[in-house]
Amino acid sequence: MNNKTMMTDFYELTMAQVYFDQGKKDEIGYFDIFFRTNPFNGGYTMTGGLQETIEYLQNLNFDDEDIEFLRSTGSFSEEFLNYLKDLKFTGDVYAMPDGTAAFPNESVLTVRANMIEAQIIETALLANFNHGSLVTTKAKRITSAAQGIPVMEFGARRARGIDSAIEASKNAYIGGCKGTSNVYAGKKYNIPVMGTMAHSLVQESECEYDAFLAYAKSHPDNCIFLVDTFDTLKSGIPNAIRVSKEYLEPNGYRLKGIRIDSGDLVYLSKAAKQMLTDAGYSDATICLSNGLDEYSITNMLNEGAVIDSIGAGDNISASKERVNGVYKLVAIEKEGEIIPKIKVSGDTVKTTNPGVKKVYRFYDFDSGKVLGDVIARSDEVISTKNYTLVSDKDPWKKTEISDYIVRNLQLPIFKGGKLVYKEPTLEKKQVYCEDEYQTLTARITDINNPHTYYVDLSEKMRQQKEYMLYDAMSKAANTAMNNIDYQKIKRK
Amino acid sequence: MNNKTMMTDFYELTMAQVYFDQGKKDEIGYFDIFFRTNPFNGGYTMTGGLQETIEYLQNLNFDDEDIEFLRSTGSFSEEFLNYLKDLKFTGDVYAMPDGTAAFPNESVLTVRANMIEAQIIETALLANFNHGSLVTTKAKRITSAAQGIPVMEFGARRARGIDSAIEASKNAYIGGCKGTSNVYAGKKYNIPVMGTMAHSLVQESECEYDAFLAYAKSHPDNCIFLVDTFDTLKSGIPNAIRVSKEYLEPNGYRLKGIRIDSGDLVYLSKAAKQMLTDAGYSDATICLSNGLDEYSITNMLNEGAVIDSIGAGDNISASKERVNGVYKLVAIEKEGEIIPKIKVSGDTVKTTNPGVKKVYRFYDFDSGKVLGDVIARSDEVISTKNYTLVSDKDPWKKTEISDYIVRNLQLPIFKGGKLVYKEPTLEKKQVYCEDEYQTLTARITDINNPHTYYVDLSEKMRQQKEYMLYDAMSKAANTAMNNIDYQKIKRK
Repeated sequence: MNNKTMMTDFYELTMAQVYFDQGKKDEIGYFDIFFRTNPFNGGYTMTGGLQETIEYLQNLNFDDEDIEFLRSTGSFSEEFLNYLKDLKFTGDVYAMPDGTAAFPNESVLTVRANMIEAQIIETALLANFNHGSLVTTKAKRITSAAQGIPVMEFGARRARGIDSAIEASKNAYIGGCKGTSNVYAGKKYNIPVMGTMAHSLVQESECEYDAFLAYAKSHPDNCIFLVDTFDTLKSGIPNAIRVSKEYLEPNGYRLKGIRIDSGDLVYLSKAAKQMLTDAGYSDATICLSNGLDEYSITNMLNEGAVIDSIGAGDNISASKERVNGVYKLVAIEKEGEIIPKIKVSGDTVKTTNPGVKKVYRFYDFDSGKVLGDVIARSDEVISTKNYTLVSDKDPWKKTEISDYIVRNLQLPIFKGGKLVYKEPTLEKKQVYCEDEYQTLTARITDINNPHTYYVDLSEKMRQQKEYMLYDAMSKAANTAMNNIDYQKIKRK
Repeated sequence: MNNKTMMTDFYELTMAQVYFDQGKKDEIGYFDIFFRTNPFNGGYTMTGGLQETIEYLQNLNFDDEDIEFLRSTGSFSEEFLNYLKDLKFTGDVYAMPDGTAAFPNESVLTVRANMIEAQIIETALLANFNHGSLVTTKAKRITSAAQGIPVMEFGARRARGIDSAIEASKNAYIGGCKGTSNVYAGKKYNIPVMGTMAHSLVQESECEYDAFLAYAKSHPDNCIFLVDTFDTLKSGIPNAIRVSKEYLEPNGYRLKGIRIDSGDLVYLSKAAKQMLTDAGYSDATICLSNGLDEYSITNMLNEGAVIDSIGAGDNISASKERVNGVYKLVAIEKEGEIIPKIKVSGDTVKTTNPGVKKVYRFYDFDSGKVLGDVIARSDEVISTKNYTLVSDKDPWKKTEISDYIVRNLQLPIFKGGKLVYKEPTLEKKQVYCEDEYQTLTARITDINNPHTYYVDLSEKMRQQKEYMLYDAMSKAANTAMNNIDYQKIKRK
């Protein structure tokens, strides 16, 4: 069952039946994926999941079994089921490439497709984006905190199932990890796989020395011993040194390093460094692990921990967070005309930005750092010379900018159902994601108290939104049957 | 690539090479899966993922491409790769069935297998358990808080990728959800699929009334209208009523219900109920959704919200939590004798309970409620008449019990690589999980400040652990090279 077309919410299909019955199967809709807040209380989000979305859309297809199952629900007409049987994705997709720095309310992906296709793909596209950007963002936060110290991802065991683990290892790599422990991901995506030993090898042996020695005999050129099974300083390091002196060196090899996975890592790493140096192994690397994240890594570095590499698992592949990407109708086409659509909401934050848009990012010409983003109508022309950024929330806050470079953040991915985007290699995605990170200012990437980056609406967008809000509310009021005494129902 | 054998950490394979080189490929090891804390600051955990583990173990097999990839890493001998090529799972597995109430430090799953197989399967078994139990536990917490009001799971879009979403929908069902929006999961696992419409249908139409009417024409027998696209009370409900009066009733149908997805759900649900009742639809159901969890549901019920059904998505399929299950060597067999193994740690909580064990649960004979659990050595006989529970942390705390029923929580799953466990149907798992929940006292299931349930070590287990701890520490000390002046390295 590699075809995941059916990974869609049932209501997408019941709605599709409605469009079908209304003769709207060819009506074009525009949907935007965007999110309302950055994960991790952070100042940015690194996008992900486009690769999975491309694969999903290319394989979109209901097979006979799927149709039979849908028929069994009793919710669909034979005409509609027949239509579904031949369905392929025929629409357009524009998206920010994987690893792009994105901010709340920006259209990270836009679908232009007939309403039926556009609805059916919603669920999978969101799952792909939400997972991909969650892991990529966290990996970027952690690898950045490591300040150039290589981070290896080994969180597969804590991920949300086997397949999620594989996807996470890939996204962690895009976010800057140098390798993964996940052999499947290594093979599938050509990511360096890494790892040497677990505590079980030491426990299994008569004593730690025997375990290290046995490991050295099998892998003499890759001896990174895990030294904390019993006692890092009293047993682990001395045994590592002993095996190196007694076995590795006489055989022309050398201790490569050690890993510490518990205890006071700052203290232990300093002590280990001292012991290794005293024994003539100042070049032996020290790898630290144990639930590390951007905060603990920052603290450890500030406290002078000796770190040559970092193993991070849980917090990358299985972070306690969520990206809450949504997929909203922003316009339909009627007789060639694009009609913007809005969703008003009792929760103000859930009110959408209507219309087909483009997201522009302004960079300072000299520093290359971001100045601000603007969500504009797709038909607007943005000057390459001067622009006035106007705060979305406080329109009296205006910033005149010039000497900038401006960039449209979305690229064409599908045109008429045909893939027009060439996926970069994973290495290139990693580089791109880091380049994106480097365009952000330190205030945006601050892990503790980040600055809220300016994402403004263009003047035309703001006017359109305001107009539509008033219009929607007055229409809503007009349809109301005012025979209810609202006062009878009291708020608590 | 449906064979996920390679979803293993690289170090499992490098260690396997070591066992192989030592001639230990047939040495038997015992590994336990357990966790150290309950998720969600809760008092219990509902186990999950056994179904995926069974599938994984039955399909364990490295194909030619896998072997080729492993060869390319340069870390393995040809003899070992050859051995891997023919590898199948030949061991024993004992486990708590999916949906069992489990507590910290209990062996939820035990593997008895040769060291190579036992190591290779670690990563996948943990990913399965950690994901399965996370979702099942959260679903049980939420469905219990709903006090019998049916909860539907529709979190696929926020899950960690497409496959994770499918697994999550299944586990949510085991945890008590009555259905899912996930069509793939519905088909694969035979779970009721549910859903009617999203905001997009309303936005797409000229006005809300048109959208409801169109929906009613396509699905007259299943009209649950989403009423909050513009304004729930002023527009949504009145339009729902109007469509029912003007179209559904004249055609022999009736308004089934409404769904509210934003705003003050308590107030809106009461007001909606009033409006529906006034219009002659006191039987119309009110479905509430919008990031609901066990806390918000409890509060809403306390505040008198009118709720006939609940849609819960994010918090079930994409909760901001993690189950940190681990897989630890607890014993090996040497010449027929079982030798317990321990892992000591600088972090006391990471020190393992050594030896092959059984986990027993004592139930009060009259009430059927749990009294306490005991982790005992596998060779112990537990009296069915009288038992003294002794606190693990405070051995002076003793409780004499009698009039109990005692149960061994693990069942045999695999024997010699052969599946000996017949998986119950999903419906039966759901019932079992609820039965398990009913054996817990209100103090254990409290969502705010749960009681720490008694999980004690038997007297023999405690003695064994203590002895081994001292032994391990003295052995570790003996191997130390005391030529380092520890005082030179100061703690900060």
